[in-house]
Amino acid sequence: MRHDRHSPIGVFDSGVGGLTVLKALIERLPLESTVYLGDTARVPYGTKSGEVVTKYSLANADALLEYGIKVLVVACNTASAVALPALRQALPIPVVGVIAPGASVAAATTKTGKVAVIGTPGTIASGAYQQALASLRSELEVRSQACPLFVPLAEEGWIDGDVPRLVANKYLGEGLLSEGVDTLVLGCTHYPLLKSVIQAVAGPQVTLVDSARATADRVAEVLHERDLVKKERLATERHYLVTDTPNRFIEVGARFLGHSISGARQIDLKLRG
Amino acid sequence: MRHDRHSPIGVFDSGVGGLTVLKALIERLPLESTVYLGDTARVPYGTKSGEVVTKYSLANADALLEYGIKVLVVACNTASAVALPALRQALPIPVVGVIAPGASVAAATTKTGKVAVIGTPGTIASGAYQQALASLRSELEVRSQACPLFVPLAEEGWIDGDVPRLVANKYLGEGLLSEGVDTLVLGCTHYPLLKSVIQAVAGPQVTLVDSARATADRVAEVLHERDLVKKERLATERHYLVTDTPNRFIEVGARFLGHSISGARQIDLKLRG
Repeated sequence: MRHDRHSPIGVFDSGVGGLTVLKALIERLPLESTVYLGDTARVPYGTKSGEVVTKYSLANADALLEYGIKVLVVACNTASAVALPALRQALPIPVVGVIAPGASVAAATTKTGKVAVIGTPGTIASGAYQQALASLRSELEVRSQACPLFVPLAEEGWIDGDVPRLVANKYLGEGLLSEGVDTLVLGCTHYPLLKSVIQAVAGPQVTLVDSARATADRVAEVLHERDLVKKERLATERHYLVTDTPNRFIEVGARFLGHSISGARQIDLKLRG
Repeated sequence: MRHDRHSPIGVFDSGVGGLTVLKALIERLPLESTVYLGDTARVPYGTKSGEVVTKYSLANADALLEYGIKVLVVACNTASAVALPALRQALPIPVVGVIAPGASVAAATTKTGKVAVIGTPGTIASGAYQQALASLRSELEVRSQACPLFVPLAEEGWIDGDVPRLVANKYLGEGLLSEGVDTLVLGCTHYPLLKSVIQAVAGPQVTLVDSARATADRVAEVLHERDLVKKERLATERHYLVTDTPNRFIEVGARFLGHSISGARQIDLKLRG
């Protein structure tokens, strides 16, 4: 399908987490139409292999291409960490992930040169943040920690109180933030919901970096470079697609998007070969 | 494919949890060959809709039928809660779920007539345990509680200490076990790993019911009724199939099975229509 200025921005995530990125996109580019796909029938991606996450990412992209999207935003850290090369090779449109934008903010933020990254097991094992940071400033010292329980805590809505504080203490307490680390990258779109607990455990000397806004800035640049910016107020559309039944997405998603979702369409994904 | 006494027993689960049921099956029927399928590319089922879980269950059954299985064991509470009618309609062999066996043990165990059930959101929302218990003893008082964080805790290996104790307190503390409940059904195959924490929080007056052994007894009955019991010591085989890459299954699975898994084959599932 052909695309032009009026075509929508496509965004996908394994589920609801990427709505934090969509929220930043809508704030940064309010006139643009958007199509968001949450692969809720296969969520989560963070504990699955790179091979399977790449296969699912290609299927998500194919479904969004049918909406004539002009740019694809991979609003999932795990998919951004493992599937960008395959997506860029397969798609005729620009593909923006969340890792490079988050890494640039972190590299620009740190004064001590010591950065910590937290994310899903898949994101951390991929080394994608470590590589992105090293390519920006090779002298940076980077530590990382997988935090698999943060995703179910955020989805359960347990975002303050004893349980998330203890879990955060367990993940962040054992040396991750010692010795001068001043910047902590929230390398998963679910983690901004736990921001206040993570900040309390990390302490005031640590700046938390959330890549949603940086990713929205990068999308604005890409559209500008290609003269694909929509300039009219008219006909701005919001579509939501899910692969499981919509109820839970609509309910939990409102917490991530910051306002209610009027409806979501359930689709069946076709996996390539 | 035709089956006879020498055909294997097929077992599926969304991932590693069903290995607790496989373990009980091997103890009860050591001569039988087994094929276990963990749908690790789509795990977990407990937070997904009945519609999607049924679709995945049918695909799992089709893959196991190719091994000529003589009986299918649905070693996943969520799939047992929502997909048994569709599986029984679609398959030419007997299908055994974990809910009816667990419910009979609970109904036989309680003295006060007050039973509590914990499980995934999908299992609890289905009302399957509540129905099974009511059909056995209509006078039983049944309470239930979804405990979505127990699965990631068990998979992360956080099975004792502060975090699981606090989480268990939060789920079980708010009235679930008050007023004479003497029987607590662990309605998810992951929960036996958290047994000691759950028992400590529930108190000594509460008997925990785990359906793995009762399910193995039911499978033995079904094979006996149909004269399909394997009697020779020869050629007992163990096969493991997974839908994601095998590494994590082999590593985490050993904790659930109680001994190491020598290897698992990765397969691609075909979803029906």
